Amino acid sequence: MYRAPVEEISFTLKHVAGLKPAIEEGVFGDLSEDLADAILHEAGRFASEEVAPLREIGDRHGAVLKDAAVTTPPGWTELYARWREGGWNALQAPEEFGGQGLPAMLGVAALEMWNSASMAFGIGPTLTMGAVEAVHKHASEELKRIYLEKLVSGEWMGTMNLTEPQAGSDLAALRTRAERAGDGTYRIFGQKIFITYGEHDFTDNIVHLVLARLPDAPAGTRGISLFLVPKFLVNEDGSLGARNDAFCSGLEHKLGIHASPTCTMIFGDGFAKDREPGAIGWLIGEENRGLACMFTMMNNARLAVGIQGVAVAEAAFQKALAYANERRQGKAPGYAGDGMAPIVYHPDVQRNLLSMKALTQAARAICYSCAHATDRARAGGDDAQQWQERANLLTPIAKAFSTDVGVDVASLGVQVHGGMGFIEETGAAQLLRDARIAPIYEGTNGIQAIDLVTRKLPQGGGDHIFGYIAELGEIVGNVRSSNLADFGRTANELDDALDDFSSATRYLQKLLADGRMDEALAGATPYLRLFALAAGGAYLARAALADGSEERQLLCRFFAENFLGETQPLKESIIEGSASVGAAGKLLIAG
Amino acid sequence: MYRAPVEEISFTLKHVAGLKPAIEEGVFGDLSEDLADAILHEAGRFASEEVAPLREIGDRHGAVLKDAAVTTPPGWTELYARWREGGWNALQAPEEFGGQGLPAMLGVAALEMWNSASMAFGIGPTLTMGAVEAVHKHASEELKRIYLEKLVSGEWMGTMNLTEPQAGSDLAALRTRAERAGDGTYRIFGQKIFITYGEHDFTDNIVHLVLARLPDAPAGTRGISLFLVPKFLVNEDGSLGARNDAFCSGLEHKLGIHASPTCTMIFGDGFAKDREPGAIGWLIGEENRGLACMFTMMNNARLAVGIQGVAVAEAAFQKALAYANERRQGKAPGYAGDGMAPIVYHPDVQRNLLSMKALTQAARAICYSCAHATDRARAGGDDAQQWQERANLLTPIAKAFSTDVGVDVASLGVQVHGGMGFIEETGAAQLLRDARIAPIYEGTNGIQAIDLVTRKLPQGGGDHIFGYIAELGEIVGNVRSSNLADFGRTANELDDALDDFSSATRYLQKLLADGRMDEALAGATPYLRLFALAAGGAYLARAALADGSEERQLLCRFFAENFLGETQPLKESIIEGSASVGAAGKLLIAG
Repeated sequence: MYRAPVEEISFTLKHVAGLKPAIEEGVFGDLSEDLADAILHEAGRFASEEVAPLREIGDRHGAVLKDAAVTTPPGWTELYARWREGGWNALQAPEEFGGQGLPAMLGVAALEMWNSASMAFGIGPTLTMGAVEAVHKHASEELKRIYLEKLVSGEWMGTMNLTEPQAGSDLAALRTRAERAGDGTYRIFGQKIFITYGEHDFTDNIVHLVLARLPDAPAGTRGISLFLVPKFLVNEDGSLGARNDAFCSGLEHKLGIHASPTCTMIFGDGFAKDREPGAIGWLIGEENRGLACMFTMMNNARLAVGIQGVAVAEAAFQKALAYANERRQGKAPGYAGDGMAPIVYHPDVQRNLLSMKALTQAARAICYSCAHATDRARAGGDDAQQWQERANLLTPIAKAFSTDVGVDVASLGVQVHGGMGFIEETGAAQLLRDARIAPIYEGTNGIQAIDLVTRKLPQGGGDHIFGYIAELGEIVGNVRSSNLADFGRTANELDDALDDFSSATRYLQKLLADGRMDEALAGATPYLRLFALAAGGAYLARAALADGSEERQLLCRFFAENFLGETQPLKESIIEGSASVGAAGKLLIAG
Repeated sequence: MYRAPVEEISFTLKHVAGLKPAIEEGVFGDLSEDLADAILHEAGRFASEEVAPLREIGDRHGAVLKDAAVTTPPGWTELYARWREGGWNALQAPEEFGGQGLPAMLGVAALEMWNSASMAFGIGPTLTMGAVEAVHKHASEELKRIYLEKLVSGEWMGTMNLTEPQAGSDLAALRTRAERAGDGTYRIFGQKIFITYGEHDFTDNIVHLVLARLPDAPAGTRGISLFLVPKFLVNEDGSLGARNDAFCSGLEHKLGIHASPTCTMIFGDGFAKDREPGAIGWLIGEENRGLACMFTMMNNARLAVGIQGVAVAEAAFQKALAYANERRQGKAPGYAGDGMAPIVYHPDVQRNLLSMKALTQAARAICYSCAHATDRARAGGDDAQQWQERANLLTPIAKAFSTDVGVDVASLGVQVHGGMGFIEETGAAQLLRDARIAPIYEGTNGIQAIDLVTRKLPQGGGDHIFGYIAELGEIVGNVRSSNLADFGRTANELDDALDDFSSATRYLQKLLADGRMDEALAGATPYLRLFALAAGGAYLARAALADGSEERQLLCRFFAENFLGETQPLKESIIEGSASVGAAGKLLIAG
């Protein structure tokens, strides 16, 4: 059973990702380390004791659709109610609408724990938080007044309605239409798919944010508007009015996160037969500027999905470690006890477990560092722009690397369990099934890599990233001057990795400058991984320097000796190999 | 839908793995290339047209247990009957018992196709073939007379009963007991788990091969005997007699291969109440020598599981390639057509598809080469011992690398499908779920790596492997002297990989000689992958040299530029990193 690693999370926040200096500099007002720890402990308790026990039930029952109504698994509505009453939905939300206004760092740490306990549970509130942000930043005062407080408290949940059958990664292709009703409202018509928590029984009302196109909108992404479409209309006094014409017509049968209802939503198809057709919607922001509103939410949503990767990796590691300490098979070199050795004594099992642990901690440090940059940017000040660039830069890394880690670590977790890993009751397989969505949704990891290379690398003229690499280099200098023996060759490995990082970066920037876009795109995925390994290795070193412990030094050294070596071939893939992707790739195209 | 890649399979058999020269040298008697191709075509037709359409039904329905009887999914018993009538079960079996006595190379190629079409179907006959082999080599003439013909024809199926709850990788721990009945037969008592096709409705009788321990047996693996325990006893005239006391008491609820019944088997628990307790069994081979009998089957079973990895990778590649040519999203550099580009035009999608294709072909070449060595060894002759060593050496590579490839390629296949990949109806997720068992069963991939380092490296005094590396080196020489332009830097990359292979091999042999066993074991998994990448790259080059095609050269170059770079960090992991595994690994051991 999952136990929230509160000490490790707190340590990473404070000593690796920058929470401690930020608190000391007063970036977070009167937030103290003690208060932060108290929040983390309570979140950890709730995740371990309340959420985690419902993970498997959620998987087995799944969400069920009947007559356009979705029933969540046994115990889940009560779980959500307790979670909401605990104030967890309001953690990061604006104080003027009842939120606690806490830093993204704490929000992300709590999110990790909900998702470790159950990814299917953790994903729901993420959507609500996105809706809170979009409404808060872009909606009219009137919409804020009606919706925000209830979205912040979690009395109502929010959704994001982007995808359509022909429009997934490419939102320019979306067809859902919006018509002006003449009274300031709009009527929405269309079908959306893959809508997470599009319908459920957690809350009385659901607030859909829907991308749609006005009749006179320009083609492409500059003709998309964002609308708020509640499941139930809201009366002047805040009570619920008529049912809106927004219905769930189907649930997907998915590989994992079974308890999270993935809905096909039909807007304006006349299900609500007592009035004119069309789902009633309200514009958020300006007409045709909907994508800009969505982009506000997207960075945070991407980080939230990244943290799902960390979360499921942590859960998988805990489960595998416990099993490896219990299960006995064979003789092992270092085991002197009676009978068969616990398999944790076998070097090959140790390699798997250490890989799981090191990857999880590296990904966590990247995600928390990304949240830290977001917090610093929000805090304003002279360097706000720089911090925003840092957050922009780290977001695709946090999303893609961490979710790849989630899948890889969950798969290693299955492997450590041997035959038992393939049996569903063990729970290791569920973690792999759940983890597998995270590299896909909220922009596939391929899209993240393309975003990194084509949009994040060029930002600020392209200099920003070298400042980041130099910062990582300072950590290496500290490793070297620390003279801590258990680091082994870590400093050399990190230096080499950062050199590869710099070379690959310069090469890609040159490709972009020369307009050799297909080669740059072919190198995007290896570049993202190279970036993440170098950053993750440096962060593990920073952690080890912070407490000087043998354990952290050895874990960092393990990562350096077993993962950082990848950066050189990744660099070569980018520099030498990207041209051949196109040449060989052409031959894959049918007829 | 899967289409058996008969041309590719035939090409790999003949020009990469050695079927063509072996036929020309008369190693396979009067087998001609034409006959081999005719068999492959017919197997391909059956796999594509008869087996593949039942893959998804098998997954959805699964095997169902009721009153100790297992029902396979709708259409599956008829499928098995047609498959058996086609003579496919007898392909490799000895001719004196009705088999066709064809080479393992053809058997493995056919097995690939059954498993691509449905892994849950393909695994069943593998067990029967193992039983045929064990009975043929080790059983008495009487047992052969009663059982072999029906096992060869597939009228009855066989099983392997090894695993018990406390005895998985470590068979020394097994407890199932056998008592001498005094009439030459034995009574078997115990519980076995994870018994593939332990009970089903394909055949009237099931022939269980069961490992058990005699009362006076020495402890450990030298006290294990092998017994034949039929589900129904067999009368003198070959008709079925009384029900034996061997019953299925439970089916596992698994991540994948749902249609393959994974049984808990209870022997001698008194279910057959009309007589003395105990399942009636007959000894195979000598008392206490059962493990030696099992080892005969094990190499072939491991290769058969390796080919499952190739098979599922091939199926995943075909599905992803078809989807990438249909699905349209966004703009792509090389696409000049109307509207959105088929996603196969996107460089990042091309990278994924090329990785899938190259890994699949590399793993296939390794598996077929392993089968070729087996065939050469069986053919006898002066070099039979050398060929046996080659087969022994390649078996753990074929098993572990190919099944890792199966999981990785199936996971990439899910990714290429984007959101649709996570939806079960698409079928990409099923391939991943099915693939995930193969790195586990028939000896986990960690066990394979340990077998490679501790048993296969030292064989023949340790020289054999350098002969193998030298052979691969000849391929590199041919690449260089070919002057084929599309190879790019392939020869250099291969040279470097083979240097890493040699260095790592020498280092591990030194560790073994010095008795530094824990470090050798810590380096086992990276070494297995290094071996496989170097061999796989060389085989892709051999394929490209064989037809000189641009397509094969470019695929080989893609593999060289994007996968062979891994060999250097793998070598470093082994040489520099193995010591730290133990140091950091110790800290994972619970108080």
